[in-house]
Amino acid sequence: MAEGGAPYTTPDDLRTTLEEAGVFRTTAVDGVYHRSWDWERVLRGVEQHVMGKRVATDAPRRWFPPVMPREEFLKTDYLRSFPDLVGSIDVFDGTDKEHRALLAVLEDGGDWTSHLTPGEVVLPSSVCHPLYGTLPTDVPEDGLDEECSGWSFRHEPSLDPARMQMFRIYEYVRIGTPAQALAHRDEWLDRGLAALGELGLPVRSEAANDPFFGRVGKMLAANQLESSLKYEMVVDLTDVRPTAIGSSNYHEDHFGDTFGLHLADGTPAHSSCIGFGLDRITLALFAVHGVDVAGWPAEVRSALQC
Amino acid sequence: MAEGGAPYTTPDDLRTTLEEAGVFRTTAVDGVYHRSWDWERVLRGVEQHVMGKRVATDAPRRWFPPVMPREEFLKTDYLRSFPDLVGSIDVFDGTDKEHRALLAVLEDGGDWTSHLTPGEVVLPSSVCHPLYGTLPTDVPEDGLDEECSGWSFRHEPSLDPARMQMFRIYEYVRIGTPAQALAHRDEWLDRGLAALGELGLPVRSEAANDPFFGRVGKMLAANQLESSLKYEMVVDLTDVRPTAIGSSNYHEDHFGDTFGLHLADGTPAHSSCIGFGLDRITLALFAVHGVDVAGWPAEVRSALQC
Repeated sequence: MAEGGAPYTTPDDLRTTLEEAGVFRTTAVDGVYHRSWDWERVLRGVEQHVMGKRVATDAPRRWFPPVMPREEFLKTDYLRSFPDLVGSIDVFDGTDKEHRALLAVLEDGGDWTSHLTPGEVVLPSSVCHPLYGTLPTDVPEDGLDEECSGWSFRHEPSLDPARMQMFRIYEYVRIGTPAQALAHRDEWLDRGLAALGELGLPVRSEAANDPFFGRVGKMLAANQLESSLKYEMVVDLTDVRPTAIGSSNYHEDHFGDTFGLHLADGTPAHSSCIGFGLDRITLALFAVHGVDVAGWPAEVRSALQC
Repeated sequence: MAEGGAPYTTPDDLRTTLEEAGVFRTTAVDGVYHRSWDWERVLRGVEQHVMGKRVATDAPRRWFPPVMPREEFLKTDYLRSFPDLVGSIDVFDGTDKEHRALLAVLEDGGDWTSHLTPGEVVLPSSVCHPLYGTLPTDVPEDGLDEECSGWSFRHEPSLDPARMQMFRIYEYVRIGTPAQALAHRDEWLDRGLAALGELGLPVRSEAANDPFFGRVGKMLAANQLESSLKYEMVVDLTDVRPTAIGSSNYHEDHFGDTFGLHLADGTPAHSSCIGFGLDRITLALFAVHGVDVAGWPAEVRSALQC
């Protein structure tokens, strides 16, 4: 037990304990983990628990694959604000002869990827990104409720088990007027904190900002914080820093503008989303309740159906 | 109902029916699908059903993320045999200034990805690929039993719903002597056919080969077929061609050799795996039993727990 009330002193302690208990395995690349069945079944239980809190019960739900159309990704403008986190996919589209040339470069230890070309897909940087390009551009008066689940890639290799390179999020998304989007963001923040509290996690909300890139990014991050656009649901897993296990985000008209989604008056729709970090919540559960699922509090196991 | 006894005449018919029923959605890129909750819960039921057939009950089980270490991928030699299917991941590792240059190229409609560099990870081409590099190189006398589940990427854009660009497989892998590997391949083929039959799928086995690339590849494919290294579990979903929903593969000493796994006598270990195509089996269930899960045969719903 760490001094500050957090269950672990450092991310290293947490990672080592979970690995030794077989909860996950590290690999040759920092931030890439092989999950155990215990991890997986807890994660699915978390998703079920989160899905049990839905209010707009006729909202479409989608599970995205871990790739998305490149053109739609570019529309999100993520490349402008977070280039260092992006994962672009290259493919080989050549002939037998070009293949032989590629293999020759590979054997010489050179950059064989120079023989590849950009594919039609990239890795999603955020789980709701594949959603916006598939919505009707005329947003109805009542707004749109959407739910989605999937994998995000963020290129930020780290030994902190909370910073995985690929992780899952379940999102509740709302598209509509500014008032509709803001109400969604705020109502879901309360609902989210309650849902996570039911899992025995001592969670609280904090104003937050995204890690915008570079000098201009510093200003964008400050503006996001000042404008209270983003709140995180955080829990203390180590003494080093709080761990965000979910976030509630008001996008203003960013996606409405870039994807051409508009309200009846012709102005760009606003949107907001709440994301439940399924892998982060799972990590928090193992950190707070211990590595042996059978020993977790009965009400937590019941909520997770495991 | 198609004439040949298959439930659909063409892959187009099957895709259109499932999309109109909301079982999945197509996207801007062929072979990239958004799955419904019905699809997802059936798929999880399939995985549970498959996991219920395990024999080596103390075998480690791992759920892989959709990326794997680049260096380990290169050891599989997949790039030599199937370059056209590979997905390599690029990342941005530059400065503010280089970022501005990237954005300038993007705005001019040029290839902004030329400002990226190869990342530490790639997309897995096969689910068991991330396994071999993490195993002890001294294979014990009894051999090794391993299970793994995860996503595969194959760059083969198609409108055939059986040919998704990213899909999930559950694998039972055995590493050991040639006899141990072959016995695993054959015993699991029978076990696999029985398990799929329990789901009401009219499945049969067929000798098969992988789609090796190019002129040399044609010979490798013929050799694989002649040597009876690969069997597929197939079902007729359309009149066009049988659909493989699983496969049983003897790798000979391929992975033992490239990953330095050896037997007590110093020779490379042999290996085999049986893969259950979770997305393909799910597709087959919707094709054979209809788009309404509530109307599926009681014994199938019971086996799937849904």
